[in-house]
Amino acid sequence: MNGVKQYIDTNKERFLDELFDLIRIPSISSESAHKEDMVRCANKWKEYLLAAGADKAEVMPSNGNPVVYGEKIIDTNKPTVMVYGHYDVMPVAPIELWNTNPFDPIVKDGHIWARGADDDKGQSFMHAKAFELMVKTGQLPCNVKFMIEGEEEIGSTNLYAFCEQHKDLLQCDVILVSDTGMIAQDIPSITSGLRGLYYWEVDVKSANRDLHSGIYGGAVANPINVLCKMIADMHDENGHITIPGFYDDVLVISDEERALMGQAPFDEAQYKASLDIKEVHGEKGYTTNERTGIRPCLDVCGIWGGYINEGSKTVLPAEAHAKISVRLVANQDYEKIGRQFQQYFESVAPSYVTVSVTPCHGGAAYVCPINTPGYKAAEQAMTTTFGKRPLPTRSGGSIGIIAGFERILGVKSILMGFGLGSDAIHAPNENYPLFNFYKGIETIPYFYENFAQLYNKQ
Amino acid sequence: MNGVKQYIDTNKERFLDELFDLIRIPSISSESAHKEDMVRCANKWKEYLLAAGADKAEVMPSNGNPVVYGEKIIDTNKPTVMVYGHYDVMPVAPIELWNTNPFDPIVKDGHIWARGADDDKGQSFMHAKAFELMVKTGQLPCNVKFMIEGEEEIGSTNLYAFCEQHKDLLQCDVILVSDTGMIAQDIPSITSGLRGLYYWEVDVKSANRDLHSGIYGGAVANPINVLCKMIADMHDENGHITIPGFYDDVLVISDEERALMGQAPFDEAQYKASLDIKEVHGEKGYTTNERTGIRPCLDVCGIWGGYINEGSKTVLPAEAHAKISVRLVANQDYEKIGRQFQQYFESVAPSYVTVSVTPCHGGAAYVCPINTPGYKAAEQAMTTTFGKRPLPTRSGGSIGIIAGFERILGVKSILMGFGLGSDAIHAPNENYPLFNFYKGIETIPYFYENFAQLYNKQ
Repeated sequence: MNGVKQYIDTNKERFLDELFDLIRIPSISSESAHKEDMVRCANKWKEYLLAAGADKAEVMPSNGNPVVYGEKIIDTNKPTVMVYGHYDVMPVAPIELWNTNPFDPIVKDGHIWARGADDDKGQSFMHAKAFELMVKTGQLPCNVKFMIEGEEEIGSTNLYAFCEQHKDLLQCDVILVSDTGMIAQDIPSITSGLRGLYYWEVDVKSANRDLHSGIYGGAVANPINVLCKMIADMHDENGHITIPGFYDDVLVISDEERALMGQAPFDEAQYKASLDIKEVHGEKGYTTNERTGIRPCLDVCGIWGGYINEGSKTVLPAEAHAKISVRLVANQDYEKIGRQFQQYFESVAPSYVTVSVTPCHGGAAYVCPINTPGYKAAEQAMTTTFGKRPLPTRSGGSIGIIAGFERILGVKSILMGFGLGSDAIHAPNENYPLFNFYKGIETIPYFYENFAQLYNKQ
Repeated sequence: MNGVKQYIDTNKERFLDELFDLIRIPSISSESAHKEDMVRCANKWKEYLLAAGADKAEVMPSNGNPVVYGEKIIDTNKPTVMVYGHYDVMPVAPIELWNTNPFDPIVKDGHIWARGADDDKGQSFMHAKAFELMVKTGQLPCNVKFMIEGEEEIGSTNLYAFCEQHKDLLQCDVILVSDTGMIAQDIPSITSGLRGLYYWEVDVKSANRDLHSGIYGGAVANPINVLCKMIADMHDENGHITIPGFYDDVLVISDEERALMGQAPFDEAQYKASLDIKEVHGEKGYTTNERTGIRPCLDVCGIWGGYINEGSKTVLPAEAHAKISVRLVANQDYEKIGRQFQQYFESVAPSYVTVSVTPCHGGAAYVCPINTPGYKAAEQAMTTTFGKRPLPTRSGGSIGIIAGFERILGVKSILMGFGLGSDAIHAPNENYPLFNFYKGIETIPYFYENFAQLYNKQ
């Protein structure tokens, strides 16, 4: 790749202007008042893709908001990179906490301030401009497809069916995504895994009504006490989850990746101070980053039962309830875990209460091994532009559609994100440093170059 | 005692008329709109006591509703019986579930239907009429005092200070109370014990805010999971409470009383069916009646934390809370238990969370050994009028003032109640069988006769 920095430097103001036009469309997917904005935003993307050099670009219908698809096929013998991004954004409430109008982007202190500045208009638009750069400088080394959806912030519910329906059109060799972050501006990193999840509601019932805790206390099972015991029994003294078979399918991470992950700077004192906790706590034998990155966990997200208002009421409640979720790691089948949990929880229910488990929803974990061509292409690209090798990081969070791509399209996604923890995505005063925006545009062409080379070597 | 049945038979209509006048005064202590009714009701009691033969009767001020005091001192060498009762009643809501006006008593199907018909106007008024009977037939064998309060249904808060203040006036040899029930019309029983209680709120805090359960789950302690474990650990596998020293002061019941208690009919199938439970559950080695009667217990009365609304939200909550109570038995010092629990719960708190315990309130347990003159006097009186020996029963509930009498006045109370489980006290359609009302009036004079004899033998 030649002339990358020069091209960016020459066009940097126009890049910003174009991004700002995209940002000015308030494409909030969760608010039905913005239905027309979704279509406007999709059309703007189509226009930009064509201008950047796509052979064709369309606004395609889905069962929800439309999906923008564009492509440039230069040679069917060359590998195909598909860019995934989303043009929808989160709501802006509480609006009073914003220092500026969220849909009137400005640059201040070297950052772009606006809703979508990072997530994901700023990050996805870098790909449009990197694509333009490669086309206009005559250096595009791969076929390119773009799939930019409008429902990522509301769970990508309709994108699964869209992928099933357009499997052939979306056929590609790797999916490239910038919708995550990196550790710091001087510590590049690539997200090599996401956790899956499952979520249940559990109900424990005892008598047919709340009872007098004096008259019945000690003789009739208390469903809260029972539920607490059942929940307590789901972890052993080392913080391992006790559901039989729960860890059976957990893939052990490679020593190399674990060692690399371990290089990520982690300041425990600062971590504890920011959360105001006295100690971190989790599964024995793992570091904090490992506990959230490569190990599953089980958390009660909510619990309730009996008298929960002010003051005291002596009562032996009839029911107790909890919402319980697990985060899963690579190779754990969330549907299997869903069944295992339900079976286990109902089987350990004491005979003196009635226990029921209601499955709510689940999603698969995702992992991208660091020895795949896609990962290596990203790693080398970042090494080139940042001057140091990026670290693989595992995110504790879940992005269901990434696992969906692998399942439906059979392709790994590379999560090469350029956001920072301080970008305030989903929050007031979202921002994106100009440094990251331009560094992203600079890095992406090297990914294509590296991927084309590594792919041919396979 | 002679002519007891005859006197009752001659005056039975008048007794009812007088009781109905008392019931018609809506003396609901928890509703401030009824402040004047409280005074009217107290004055009506004063009038009735004087008419029944009291030497003096007064409506005495307390820090709350007034207390009716009356006495007839026949001979200071004779023992003194003090009758305790209350003229206040519970609210009537939900009024739409009443079949009749709660303050317009009627007799139907052999029952009096009204608020207070049993609790405690009907039961306490039996004592006024039994007193009248003994005076008018010239057979009063003891000195008599009456203390009828107006705040029993709101915790007798001001009666403790009243007793302290009037210790000399209230000096007596036994306190006789009809504010409890018996097993059935053909199975008389006497309440020989009440449980005490203590009530706390506990709070477990982890991070300074609710956290993303993906990003932090597994690495930061979940306060709900921690609270569940702490609650679960408070019982062992046999249902014993694990707080160190918790059982140290529990008095073991006599073999005789345990055997007598065991004679109380108990239909487990019917008990389970009425509560719609599959099994009873409690401390190993004790029957259902023993579990509620002679053993302490620990129940979570309420628990809450995290997301408890409809649907699912993945969150690692910052806090979890519970309201926990224990019921205590004879000789357990509730203040000591209060401290033990707090000390224990805070001491077992894991270092990665902050746990605090807020004591709410407590009350002492009460026990009346079945070999005291008062108990025996009641037992023999019921044997005379019911034709069979009454069984001692331990109530699982708590009436704080009964233990207060023992502490302040140094006198045992005899809980000779004539109510039935079907009387619907505190509920719509409260009622009291005429059989029980008249049988109570018939039985009480024999108590006085027996007590005078047994007291002299001491």
